[in-house]
Amino acid sequence: MRVAVIQQHNSADLDDNLSRSMAKIREAATGGAELVMLQELHRSLYFCQTEDTDVFDLAETIPGPTTDALGALADELNIVIVGSLFEKRATGLYHNTAVVLERDGTLAGIYRKMHIPDDPGFYEKFYFTPGDATFNDQRSGFTPINTSAGKLGLLVCWDQWYPEAARLMALAGAELLLYPTAIGWDRSDDNDEQQRQLDAWITVQRAHAVANGVPVLVANRTGFEPAPHTTRDSDGIQFWGNSFICGPQGEYLAHAGQDGEEILIADIDKRRSEDVRRIWPYLRDRRIDAYGDLTKRYRD
Amino acid sequence: MRVAVIQQHNSADLDDNLSRSMAKIREAATGGAELVMLQELHRSLYFCQTEDTDVFDLAETIPGPTTDALGALADELNIVIVGSLFEKRATGLYHNTAVVLERDGTLAGIYRKMHIPDDPGFYEKFYFTPGDATFNDQRSGFTPINTSAGKLGLLVCWDQWYPEAARLMALAGAELLLYPTAIGWDRSDDNDEQQRQLDAWITVQRAHAVANGVPVLVANRTGFEPAPHTTRDSDGIQFWGNSFICGPQGEYLAHAGQDGEEILIADIDKRRSEDVRRIWPYLRDRRIDAYGDLTKRYRD
Repeated sequence: MRVAVIQQHNSADLDDNLSRSMAKIREAATGGAELVMLQELHRSLYFCQTEDTDVFDLAETIPGPTTDALGALADELNIVIVGSLFEKRATGLYHNTAVVLERDGTLAGIYRKMHIPDDPGFYEKFYFTPGDATFNDQRSGFTPINTSAGKLGLLVCWDQWYPEAARLMALAGAELLLYPTAIGWDRSDDNDEQQRQLDAWITVQRAHAVANGVPVLVANRTGFEPAPHTTRDSDGIQFWGNSFICGPQGEYLAHAGQDGEEILIADIDKRRSEDVRRIWPYLRDRRIDAYGDLTKRYRD
Repeated sequence: MRVAVIQQHNSADLDDNLSRSMAKIREAATGGAELVMLQELHRSLYFCQTEDTDVFDLAETIPGPTTDALGALADELNIVIVGSLFEKRATGLYHNTAVVLERDGTLAGIYRKMHIPDDPGFYEKFYFTPGDATFNDQRSGFTPINTSAGKLGLLVCWDQWYPEAARLMALAGAELLLYPTAIGWDRSDDNDEQQRQLDAWITVQRAHAVANGVPVLVANRTGFEPAPHTTRDSDGIQFWGNSFICGPQGEYLAHAGQDGEEILIADIDKRRSEDVRRIWPYLRDRRIDAYGDLTKRYRD
């Protein structure tokens, strides 16, 4: 199965961002991709550099304009599209939500970001309610989305630092892990620190592939976005790109550069997960009798 | 705090292996190391290439000859030593056990390997009972060991593939994660596969540092050990070395080569874990309300 990941630079022009994303999706589909993933919050600038109530105007419902547009495109191209948007669930209740559109344009499912960051320049806790732990239909927040391109373990950005999230998706049968992302550097950090952060980010996600024997797709934003005048203490963010696709041993199948827009394309052989898990059978030996304390905040 | 990791080639001569280990510990201590870790089962060949009841003769009690020897050396050098041995707990009850000797020669604690592998050439399930999930004193199997060199999150080899184990140690206050290891290649695998396996092994352990904001020490064996004549289907193991020490962002502090014995020395700055965890506060945002299924074998 051929998959694609789109790494994009955004501006304040919502329509232009979306139309450029859609042009890239077309290009990926022309290249044979059956599954195309966009980066986190791909319709706008990364607006969490400041806490501003006016920003909630950017939020939209599901279904809404972004799912309508991506659904129509998925239908036209006969591919599965993974998008990410600022969801208005109710008045005063918003989420950072990834959406999956099926080949026929219908909504295959959504995933509401479970782990919400908050640090200088990334004030997400102001905007996003964390995804529900469980839903009324008994689904867990960490439930893969069934599609014609496989069972997608869709997670978002800050989730990528949590091995628990990746594992729960794998235990529920996810065949791929997908991370729409918006992460970058504070330009006041020195080069060594920036390199450590980037390496850590790549390493922890490749490790999810390794620990679970599944491919991982990561779409990150690129380019510099200055801090809005309303910001507290962010100097802007240099998004670090480096989107990648890796196989079930964490091996790179495609890897984007830091700057510049890219369409990454790779062929995923699902048989490799079967083969890798037979000879590296981590799921066989999990000590579930001894993992109870993982649900504690701290073991003190 | 200066720490050291010893990467060694072993032979069938138990006394020679241990005396060479001890010489290297002396050398590390002379270089200023306050904490020195040996590789997994450092007193013998990696005997799990075959299933042979005579091999149980290699097992020893705790305390026993290895803890006596390492304890005396720890006392003499005034350092903390982490060793690894084949433990006879009772007749017919054996473990793969890491031991920690304090600066005064006393036994600071033990850790019995929780996840036991079994694949061609690594028939560990024949020899080792998995460590207890909980003990009569209410300790969990994943409990760090308090020492004068810090709280040691000691795990062994196959444990290194399990993010759950690293997390449980970190949640219990481990300041370092330590992995005595014996892992290598089946020489019948091609070079690409061998490289993927090595990269996966490095990646997953560096990721434990990242996800938990703690340094990681890994001691692996080096050299080729042929399969015993009693083996089923192993062609021998080419142990891949590559012992390493990394900081709390997964950054290398020291990294050994594939072949040859080495003493890795690095300075660990515990303040860096404090700093890293302040700005990358993963522990703050864990979704413990949604992690319950981690204690399931599979979510089906």
